Amino acid sequence: MSIRYADAGVHLEVAEQVTERIANRLGSALFGGFVPVPELKTYRSPVLVSSIDGIGTKVKLAAQLNALDGLGQDIVHHCLNDIAVHGARPLFFMDYLAFHSLEPDLVEHLVASIASACEAQGVRLAGGETAEMPSVYAPGHFDIAGAVVGVVESDEIVDGTAIREGDVILGLPASGLHTNGYSLVQRVFSAAEYATYDLVLGRSLGDELLEPHRCYLDPIREALAGANVHGLAHITGGGIEGNLSRIVPDGLVAELTLPPDLPPIYTLLHGRGVPWNEMREVFNMGIGLIAVCDPQTSLSGEWFELGTISKSTSERRVRFGDDR
Amino acid sequence: MSIRYADAGVHLEVAEQVTERIANRLGSALFGGFVPVPELKTYRSPVLVSSIDGIGTKVKLAAQLNALDGLGQDIVHHCLNDIAVHGARPLFFMDYLAFHSLEPDLVEHLVASIASACEAQGVRLAGGETAEMPSVYAPGHFDIAGAVVGVVESDEIVDGTAIREGDVILGLPASGLHTNGYSLVQRVFSAAEYATYDLVLGRSLGDELLEPHRCYLDPIREALAGANVHGLAHITGGGIEGNLSRIVPDGLVAELTLPPDLPPIYTLLHGRGVPWNEMREVFNMGIGLIAVCDPQTSLSGEWFELGTISKSTSERRVRFGDDR
Repeated sequence: MSIRYADAGVHLEVAEQVTERIANRLGSALFGGFVPVPELKTYRSPVLVSSIDGIGTKVKLAAQLNALDGLGQDIVHHCLNDIAVHGARPLFFMDYLAFHSLEPDLVEHLVASIASACEAQGVRLAGGETAEMPSVYAPGHFDIAGAVVGVVESDEIVDGTAIREGDVILGLPASGLHTNGYSLVQRVFSAAEYATYDLVLGRSLGDELLEPHRCYLDPIREALAGANVHGLAHITGGGIEGNLSRIVPDGLVAELTLPPDLPPIYTLLHGRGVPWNEMREVFNMGIGLIAVCDPQTSLSGEWFELGTISKSTSERRVRFGDDR
Repeated sequence: MSIRYADAGVHLEVAEQVTERIANRLGSALFGGFVPVPELKTYRSPVLVSSIDGIGTKVKLAAQLNALDGLGQDIVHHCLNDIAVHGARPLFFMDYLAFHSLEPDLVEHLVASIASACEAQGVRLAGGETAEMPSVYAPGHFDIAGAVVGVVESDEIVDGTAIREGDVILGLPASGLHTNGYSLVQRVFSAAEYATYDLVLGRSLGDELLEPHRCYLDPIREALAGANVHGLAHITGGGIEGNLSRIVPDGLVAELTLPPDLPPIYTLLHGRGVPWNEMREVFNMGIGLIAVCDPQTSLSGEWFELGTISKSTSERRVRFGDDR
């Protein structure tokens, strides 16, 4: 009797094929673990800012609907936003893909999607790992994680410590649910509902849910260059309160009112039994990025006002004006 | 009817509890995505070197045997070795943990294991992500990935381009199977066999298999300081040939003979039907690190000779003297 690796569900020749395809597609210019950073010598006091994250069970929904193209933007934009809110300029990105079984077409599809999202933002894809783990992942399942590294001058770090009473709170629209709350979404809706065109959404529910995570790199750059920004929050898991709370200093509270034109997906979710309070803890409620600025400052264009910073003796750092 | 996040298997209050426990255990000194790197200003030409990786289905075996303490060293050492072989000094590490369901004790156990492995090597734990994905991971299952970032002077990068005819090939012992081939191992052995004391191994099969991945940071530092090292290979997935091939330049071949005292685990695996050829493509065969050096150089202590570099017209970069 002879036992080979393939008998355990791990396929070396498929792994080699995948590696070759990835190398062919990316070319050496974009790919490779070495990132020269001569520019760091010009920083007065360089600080590396990093983040590692996943995109949750949105991967499962995308696989189920056979619509994987947006997942690269999901993981890359999610990670980029996480360091951009601290004022960091991204240097490079890495991905980790783990599968029940390696299907070369699927792996290549995902890597291509990640590579093009990096390229579009001018961020180097410095490496990645593709793992085949038949006993950890259920058949047909996979997971995607990403890590990003950026740099900022130590005295230009944005972390909310500059926030003070009277500051205005501004928001930027999200492109959709981004990458949080997808286990709840998939508990609420049934598989049969995704393909149907929805009149209120103006597209199918599946298309709405798979809309890629928006990249806030450009608006953040413009805001930091043109306004007196005291704090920035990327609204991800934990919702507005969970993420904004982290940057509001002791003794202050962010008092805000959600705009009346809540995206219709939330009304749909509420109609299917998700309480408003629960929803606010899980989803971004249509606001993907929040900036806290000096009231003399001007952030126009897409930015809309959400509220102001007040003094407070309570432990709670975020208070909603309406209580829906 | 009301549907909450917990109904979808995601538990916000458990996630908060876990975050709090991790923060308490780590303290702010070690944890945090900001890594000041003033020393990079003193580099003539700094290059960041990064790696992202997992530890495969060793996580499954460790969970099954309820012996998780070594997994921190497994993921941290695996990643550190991957950049150290390029001459890089590690700056910081990040982890990604994804679970079917968040059990605070389990998460805390894993994070503590990762944090202490980082601390022991003087590497900062700069961040991490803990995800609960009930629909992607099978009940009781989880995955661990890690990313490391280091720095090296551009003219001190070790990548094998300096390797020439006549160089000697030296090896350092592995501590065990490290973190590759565990799907095959778990296909070969049955759950009932792990607890039994094995006379040849001198311990139980489970203890042998869960021996943590060895860290080669110190021996690599010493070798680079004291000898003329032309190339270094960390022997992971793909075995000796897969990893050594990557650093041997065109027109050369590494001719080597495995030492006769192969660790007994390989004899056990062979006895259970794994062909020698297959084994060499999957496992490290007892050699976790290979150095290719100038023949005038002296690497003593634990290092043992494996062979030499010769001229070659073949595409194959590694040739084994014995063909077992």
